[in-house]
Amino acid sequence: MDNPALVDVTRGNLTESLHRGSVAVVDTGGNLVFGIGDVDARVYPRSAIKALQALPLVESGAAEALDLTDAELSLACASHNGEEIHANAARVMLLKAGLNEDDLECGPQWPQRMEDAAKLILADEVPCGLHNNCSGKHAGFLGLAKTMGVDTRGYIEPDHPVQREVRLAMEQMTGDTLTEDVCGTDGCSIPTYASPLRSFARAFASFGTGEGLEPLRADAARQIYDACINEPYMVAGADRFCTRVMETFRGRVFVKTGAEGVFCAAIPELGFGVSLKCDDGATRAAEVMMATVLEIALELNEDEAVLMDNLVNPPVLTRRGVQAGHIRPGEEFLSALKAALKQAK
Amino acid sequence: MDNPALVDVTRGNLTESLHRGSVAVVDTGGNLVFGIGDVDARVYPRSAIKALQALPLVESGAAEALDLTDAELSLACASHNGEEIHANAARVMLLKAGLNEDDLECGPQWPQRMEDAAKLILADEVPCGLHNNCSGKHAGFLGLAKTMGVDTRGYIEPDHPVQREVRLAMEQMTGDTLTEDVCGTDGCSIPTYASPLRSFARAFASFGTGEGLEPLRADAARQIYDACINEPYMVAGADRFCTRVMETFRGRVFVKTGAEGVFCAAIPELGFGVSLKCDDGATRAAEVMMATVLEIALELNEDEAVLMDNLVNPPVLTRRGVQAGHIRPGEEFLSALKAALKQAK
Repeated sequence: MDNPALVDVTRGNLTESLHRGSVAVVDTGGNLVFGIGDVDARVYPRSAIKALQALPLVESGAAEALDLTDAELSLACASHNGEEIHANAARVMLLKAGLNEDDLECGPQWPQRMEDAAKLILADEVPCGLHNNCSGKHAGFLGLAKTMGVDTRGYIEPDHPVQREVRLAMEQMTGDTLTEDVCGTDGCSIPTYASPLRSFARAFASFGTGEGLEPLRADAARQIYDACINEPYMVAGADRFCTRVMETFRGRVFVKTGAEGVFCAAIPELGFGVSLKCDDGATRAAEVMMATVLEIALELNEDEAVLMDNLVNPPVLTRRGVQAGHIRPGEEFLSALKAALKQAK
Repeated sequence: MDNPALVDVTRGNLTESLHRGSVAVVDTGGNLVFGIGDVDARVYPRSAIKALQALPLVESGAAEALDLTDAELSLACASHNGEEIHANAARVMLLKAGLNEDDLECGPQWPQRMEDAAKLILADEVPCGLHNNCSGKHAGFLGLAKTMGVDTRGYIEPDHPVQREVRLAMEQMTGDTLTEDVCGTDGCSIPTYASPLRSFARAFASFGTGEGLEPLRADAARQIYDACINEPYMVAGADRFCTRVMETFRGRVFVKTGAEGVFCAAIPELGFGVSLKCDDGATRAAEVMMATVLEIALELNEDEAVLMDNLVNPPVLTRRGVQAGHIRPGEEFLSALKAALKQAK
């Protein structure tokens, strides 16, 4: 990787740290509208493609058979905070499939925020699989396994029917062949298959518009898109980038973060899919990169502009809350984005 | 910054993320024994130079006047976990100066580990300045102010007598002029002055050996070095790199981490000072960089070798504790280090 610096972290007059990365914006025709850095290198998408991993859940009829609500379908695409509302929704999803938290194979995780962790501590509880940020995705996988009539045990393994279905959907959406040699194990124990950013961006261009998809898949993509847009709190939670953006943009964009600095988005009104990766895996930089793409690509209303000002240029604070610096997109990244995307507006 | 990739983060067969950076190893004569990346660019040292910031506390006679123990002097150099033992020691340091936690101007911080946070939650308490990872340093600053007979209020400001003393000590140790234009505000609200890695490494070569220092300063450096070596738990705490290394190396090395991927060390038996920075600010990479330098530079006994194996090549784990990849030094970094440092053994 020899990708350019895209994000600066300043303190006082100096750049204290910087983040390199790559970004691909692709249209529904598969054309690279904007590319910076190596967009053809394979990258693990991690949680940024949960919405695509949920396609078999809907296409198979499992979501309908289990009577999943928008909130639950949104949770199936989530990397959530492990708040009570998220853990409870995952529990209900499992109940609908006749299962419970013991069937989850994702492992436990403390809630993201101290106030949610405190609730568990005060109740003398420890976190379980329901609090894992991926519990909704896993509940979806389990629901799919149950509806398929296969053994739910081992649903995280690459050769389990559920993961085979998911891999097939990913191959179709990205246009790539996903073999064992590009397969890693995700933090929640399921396989994650590396593809180029260009492929993920193309997949999200189709996901957001339905263009180029079979009718069944286009319907499923629409259902998942709408569920996340209607229930953005379930995708992440309090103070989270994905939730704040989807709440404010009211259907104009779908965004989803992934571990190790990956981010994907769909911008249906422009027919764009976006995919990016911060080389070093930093979420703070991936968020600034995604916010910058959205700010440059879209005409913003006042609410959207206020939010983007905040997300494009977040402050670096002392522990007393005083600003010591900021995180901001690099000049070259900004110029290149403007040159490529301004025409698209 | 156009520094080389020094640390890889793998998952499955692929490199998922990578970290660039720079490293300087300097001897007591000020010669660069090993340098990779730009070692002349100014870098904020953050908490990695707390041991140097503690020099005025000892040289002024304040540490003696306040009857500070080794544990308390070690805490003055610490970025600690905010465990009970750390918060209590900071409280006692303040008491010895006739002060209390309300005099701290570092701001509050939750303890690093969930089990220590849980103790506060169960006692219906919120964290205060004593839990801030810098509370020992601040208690030392306050003790110095009190002993100097100056107003303790505003001891965090660049023009307060305490910070002027600290800046002077830093200028003398680094050989650099530290002006407002290279001054940032640290997370704990005190000034942090940027200098080249080469200068910090030189400072730690002197700190560890006393060479090139006036007798009063050499004595103070020795006292601080010994305090940290004797009480390594106070420098960081449970499961922390600095504590584990200093516990295991039993006086052979002093190491200290800082925010945004900075690390400093002294290796007295070789007469070396070490200073490094991960470009993107990642602690996980700075730790692997420092562990790699120590492993290559020193002849290790069995205990040291076991620890270094772990710290040079830490696993990337799933939430179920299964290894999904590892963090490791890059081949070029390793080769360059071996070529430069093997002779020194």
